[in-house]
Amino acid sequence: MIAEFSITPVGAGVSIGAYVAKAVQIVHDSGVKYELNPMGTVVEGDWDRVMAVIKRCHDELLKECERLSIVVKIDARRGPQPPMEEKVRSVKARLRT
Amino acid sequence: MIAEFSITPVGAGVSIGAYVAKAVQIVHDSGVKYELNPMGTVVEGDWDRVMAVIKRCHDELLKECERLSIVVKIDARRGPQPPMEEKVRSVKARLRT
Amino acid sequence: MIAEFSITPVGAGVSIGAYVAKAVQIVHDSGVKYELNPMGTVVEGDWDRVMAVIKRCHDELLKECERLSIVVKIDARRGPQPPMEEKVRSVKARLRT
Amino acid sequence: MIAEFSITPVGAGVSIGAYVAKAVQIVHDSGVKYELNPMGTVVEGDWDRVMAVIKRCHDELLKECERLSIVVKIDARRGPQPPMEEKVRSVKARLRT
Repeated sequence: MIAEFSITPVGAGVSIGAYVAKAVQIVHDSGVKYELNPMGTVVEGDWDRVMAVIKRCHDELLKECERLSIVVKIDARRGPQPPMEEKVRSVKARLRT
Repeated sequence: MIAEFSITPVGAGVSIGAYVAKAVQIVHDSGVKYELNPMGTVVEGDWDRVMAVIKRCHDELLKECERLSIVVKIDARRGPQPPMEEKVRSVKARLRT
Repeated sequence: MIAEFSITPVGAGVSIGAYVAKAVQIVHDSGVKYELNPMGTVVEGDWDRVMAVIKRCHDELLKECERLSIVVKIDARRGPQPPMEEKVRSVKARLRT
Repeated sequence: MIAEFSITPVGAGVSIGAYVAKAVQIVHDSGVKYELNPMGTVVEGDWDRVMAVIKRCHDELLKECERLSIVVKIDARRGPQPPMEEKVRSVKARLRT
C-alpha cells in the first residue's frame, strides 16, 4: 500500500521542525521506501511494515512531546499496486502545460 | 489514544453503506470502545489494539473491494488521556447556547 | 455536502480545549447544522456555507494562536444527500449487536 | 497558508487517474503555486485563493462523478510563512543519510 502520514506535536512550540526531522530520520533508517513533501511523508510497503514505522515515530516523539496529532491516509489495493512515483508520473503525463 | 478512521471503497459503487457496516461490525465485535459519527468511527485504546482493529477492517474489506481509501486521525498523549466522551462534554460545557 | 473538520493549535500548549470551544461556538452561532464528536465537528450544508464557517474559525483562532493545523474531510454528492444523522442510523440498522 | 488536498471519486471505478488529472489541470491553470505528490496536491496561497481552486475541482468533478471524498489538510500561520519547498529542505538538511 501507499500511505502518507504527518505527526504534529501539540504543545511543543510553533517550530516543530526538529520533531519532524526526528520522525523522518526514523523512516529513513527503517529502510522503507519513502518520499517527503511539504505536508507529510509518503511511504510504500505492506500494512505491517508501514504501520510499524509510523508507530516507531509515534513512540519516539511521545518521549519528547506530551501530545501528538497524527494523520495517516492510505491508498490500499488488492494485488499489485503501481509504485508511488508512477502515480505522479501518470498524472503529469496527462497534464497540458 | 483516541483515533478516528474511515474506510471508503473506491470503485465499488456510490452506495458504500454495506461496506461501512461491515467495518463497523468488526469494530463492534472486537470489543474496543467506539462511537460512530456521520464521517467516521472513533475508537479508544492503545496503539496496537486500535491499529489491529483497523487492519482487520482493511483486510476484510479488501476481500470484497479492489481498492480502499483509508483516513486515520490520531490524538495521542503520553500518560493517561481523558476518555473520548469527556472531550465532547468539556467543549459542550463551555458552549453558550 | 457533509464535512468534518478539526482545528489544532500548534504551539499554544497541550490543553487546547478553550480554542476548540471557541471554534465550536462560531459553528453554533452560524446556524449551520452540526454535530460534535471526540475528534472533530461534522457540519452539513453547501460548499460556500460550510467553508465560510470553517474560514471564520480559522480567522478567529489565528488571532490567538500563531499556527493552526486544520483537517477537513468532505463527503460531496451531486444532487440531494441523506442528512448526516441518516448515515449513522443506516449503519446502526445493519449492526448485529 | 500551505494546504494539501486530494479528491477521490467514489463509485466511478477503481482507476481514477483521469479524474485526478482533471483536478490537477484545474490547479495548474489557476496559476496557484502547487506541487504533486503520490497522495495529493500541495498548494500555497491565502485561504480564499486556495479554497477557490479546490472548490473549482469539486465543481468540475461532480459533473462527472456522483460522489467525491475530499481531504484537505492545512498548515496555517499568522504572518509570513516559509514557502512550501523550504519545509522539505529544512527537514532534509537535518537528515543523517
